[in-house]
Order: sequence, then structure tokens, then C-alpha cells
Amino acid sequence: MRFALVDGTPATSIPIDDRALHYGDGLFETIAVRAARPEFLSYHVERLARGIEALAIPPQHPDVLEREVATAATKLGEGTLKLIVTRGSAERGYRAPQHARPRRLLLGYEPASLPPSWLSEGVRVRMCSTRLGHQPRLAGLKHLNRLEQILARSEWQDPTIAEGLMMDEADNVICATSANLFVVRGRELATPRVDRAGVAGVMRRVVLELAVRDGLTVAERTVQRSELLDASELMLSNSVIGLWRVRELEGRMFSDEAMWRRLSTAIAACGGRSPE
Amino acid sequence: MRFALVDGTPATSIPIDDRALHYGDGLFETIAVRAARPEFLSYHVERLARGIEALAIPPQHPDVLEREVATAATKLGEGTLKLIVTRGSAERGYRAPQHARPRRLLLGYEPASLPPSWLSEGVRVRMCSTRLGHQPRLAGLKHLNRLEQILARSEWQDPTIAEGLMMDEADNVICATSANLFVVRGRELATPRVDRAGVAGVMRRVVLELAVRDGLTVAERTVQRSELLDASELMLSNSVIGLWRVRELEGRMFSDEAMWRRLSTAIAACGGRSPE
Repeated sequence: MRFALVDGTPATSIPIDDRALHYGDGLFETIAVRAARPEFLSYHVERLARGIEALAIPPQHPDVLEREVATAATKLGEGTLKLIVTRGSAERGYRAPQHARPRRLLLGYEPASLPPSWLSEGVRVRMCSTRLGHQPRLAGLKHLNRLEQILARSEWQDPTIAEGLMMDEADNVICATSANLFVVRGRELATPRVDRAGVAGVMRRVVLELAVRDGLTVAERTVQRSELLDASELMLSNSVIGLWRVRELEGRMFSDEAMWRRLSTAIAACGGRSPE
Repeated sequence: MRFALVDGTPATSIPIDDRALHYGDGLFETIAVRAARPEFLSYHVERLARGIEALAIPPQHPDVLEREVATAATKLGEGTLKLIVTRGSAERGYRAPQHARPRRLLLGYEPASLPPSWLSEGVRVRMCSTRLGHQPRLAGLKHLNRLEQILARSEWQDPTIAEGLMMDEADNVICATSANLFVVRGRELATPRVDRAGVAGVMRRVVLELAVRDGLTVAERTVQRSELLDASELMLSNSVIGLWRVRELEGRMFSDEAMWRRLSTAIAACGGRSPE
């Protein structure tokens, strides 16, 4: 970690009675910073606002957030900013205080040290055995309850495997541990629904919008495991990695990359990370 | 809060890179303290150890935990101790560090300010609309991912309602927001299974063991909502409250209390909270 701010002030710790620590009572955003600029910042702030509303945390002023993130991005130059909003301090018990005073954390990290070939040539991916539970009230949100992802990420140590795909209890494929999934079959670009489990990623939104603008056939729908092997391309997206193509899923090789190239070019054109 | 220790040392904050804050990556125990003595301490330490093993957090020495809690109970006199074990500090990302150094938090709180009549005469209870998702890998554990309970507890403000019952997505009744449920029908004392959702409470274990010892017919099983209205008694248990009888569930009054009285007497006889 390069630096941390709590409510705008440099800090190395948070109060021991914060509800994020006790219950995971809060939300976060992971924002890529390139050339001192936060990528897709307005989308991050919008998603955070939706989560804050869903958890009935007092709203944060978007201007304050955007200004603070922009200033921190200037300081960071290249890397990742993590913005966390918690419900703040409280006495013991699940009941939220009537007049909660949310706490805002902003952490600056070095660029992720991932092999450059993962972006340029694609990644190896596995299936996880840890399933995602259904929780429509929390699905789509980037909240601080992340034990399912931690359990899934602990299933492999092989450093050549970049990600693991997770299914829900109904055998639908939902996402990777920290990325959204895109499946190309025929002329369709599909991505799993995230209304019962999963996170509605900012890069997922970017990809969907670019694909629609590009005239592609786009679907947010249920995705079965069997479709993965029939697909011509699989891709993974998140704000830090951009868009990866899947090169191998448990022994099945994917050589097509036309859709991935087309979308990567579009992402780069609107200011996102480029594989070149 | 009366006091807080981090790894045995007085503290008011925790490092901002702790994984409990970022992901809810840890476990907790809520321990009642009466007459400077922690109640059912060995059961709390055992359950914590099971959770630590399930999350693959490096184990804590039970003697260290028990000694620290006992010393804190002496200092507290009357109240509640909350013991939290986190996976400790780490860099960004779900992947757990290979050599995690867990962090141990111990917080001392004043006695809960609940109406004494709730213990002596019973409580009013409602049904929550927030459902519990199924997650067999985490069910039973008292982990730090508690947004479902927070959403459920936010459903009512009426201070005369003590608790809300939660169902899972399959319409089974699982527990209250912060208590386990017991249902008396005929000669059977039943409590919902907690292998897909819910917490395996320490007081739940105490009640089950006392009931078996007392020769009662005991079942951990699926409980349907319709059974609640057919029951002769409903009871709620947790370590802080002991055993409450439900006086009213959404308009249905419960007047029987024979089983509740019998179990409360047994709990008091082994050192727990008594309604007298």
C-alpha cells in the first residue's frame, strides 16, 4: 500500500468499533489509475451510490468522492485506488444506528504485478467448487461480505492459473472470483445475470455498452456450464485487468479472439487499458 | 464499549489493511459475563476453532484465548465480551497470504439494556422478509459476513418487538436475526438445521445438550413456517439473552411455557442466565 486516507485525512488505522470490521457493513470500489487519471470514475461513483442506497447508508456526496479520488490518482500516478464506504462506528448489535456517520476510506496501491502476457495472450482458468449462494438483496453490489470469493480463491495455488469460475447453487455460471464473464457463441455476446449472485462490474458495464453501441447481439442471461465448452470465446473483465481472453479452461483451448480484439480496441478508445 | 484489546494490548483501532475490514475475513464470539465469569467459555473457544479451521486461518492456541477472556471477564464484572479473530493484514486481493498472521480482538461491553420482562415474561417476534441464502461452506459458522442479518434487523423499528425470524430461500425457518429458534410440538423439541444457512449458536448447543440429558425428544431438522403457528411453544436462544420464550408471533399468542421453564431452570443450574 502506498497511502491511505480516512475521511480525507492520512491514516494507518480505523476505529475498532467500525461496522465494516464487525459485520462487513459497507461497500467498495476498485479503481484503475493510469497516467494519474482514475478510469471510469463516474461509473464507480454511480455503482457505489446504488450500493449505499440498497444498504440504507446515508448518501455520500458524489462531488466529494470524485474530487478526492481524482486528487489521489494524481498522487498515485499508476496503480489501483480502493474506495471503501462503511456505515461507521456503532455500539454492539446488527441494528444500524439511527444516525449513522459513514466512514470513507481511500487506499492507494502499486500497479498489480500480473504477467503482461495475460493481457496480450490470454489466461488459463479453472472451475471452482465453492458455489455462490443466492441473495437477491445483495446481488450486483460490491459489498464487503466476501468470504465466498476468499474460499473460491483458496482452491488453487498454481501461479499459471489466473482465475476461477464460480457457479451458483443452481449450476449456473456467474462470474470469476474477481471478474465478470463474457461468453461468445455464434453472433451473441452473453454475460451471466447478476440479480441473484455476483457483482455488476464497472468494466462489465463498459463492455456491454460498447458492444451495444457496436451493434452486437448482447444478452444478460442465465449461462449454463455446458455453454462454456461450446463457446468460441470466453472473456473476463474487471476494472484493474481490463478485458482478458480465456486461452484455456480446464484443458479446453480457445484460439478465436476476434470478439476480444474488437472489444479491447473499443475499451482502449474510450480510455481503458489496452492489450497492446 | 468499556475496553478493547488487540493481540492482548489495549487499543482503539486496527490497521487499515486488516482483511476483516476489507472482506469480513474472520470470525467472532459473543460471550456473556456474569459475576466476572465468562459463560460457556469452552464452547465458544471450540466453535471459534471450527470456524478458524473452515476458513483455513492459522489456529489460535485455546489456552491463550481462554486465559485472555477470563482476565477480561474479571475486569468487566458484568456485560458482554466480543472476541474477533481476523486473518490479519494483507495486500489487496481475495487470495489469502500464504503466511497469514491472524489478529485477535477482545472488546468489553456494558450489559445489554434489554427490558427485564423479555426474559421473565417472553417476547414479541415478527417474520422478516429478508431471506438467508444457502452457503453450506459457511453455514453454522459465526463469521464476519453479516449483511443479511443487518438487512433483516433494519426491517422494523418498533421497540416492543424483540426479534425477527428469518427463512431461507426454500421457505424453511432458520433462526432469528441474532438468536436460534426452538419449536415445541407435542413431545418434540425441534430446532432448525444450520447446515445450509444460520449460525450454530453456543446457547443452542447448551439447550440441545440439556434437553437430551433430560430425556426429551430432540430434533435438528427442517422447520416449515406453518409449524410455527401449530407449536405449543417457541423459544429463542443466544449467549447474551439466554433463553427467551416467544409470547407473540405476528398476532398469534403463546401461553404455554412448561418447556421454557424446564429448560431455563436447567440452564441456570449449569451457570447460565436465569429468568428469576
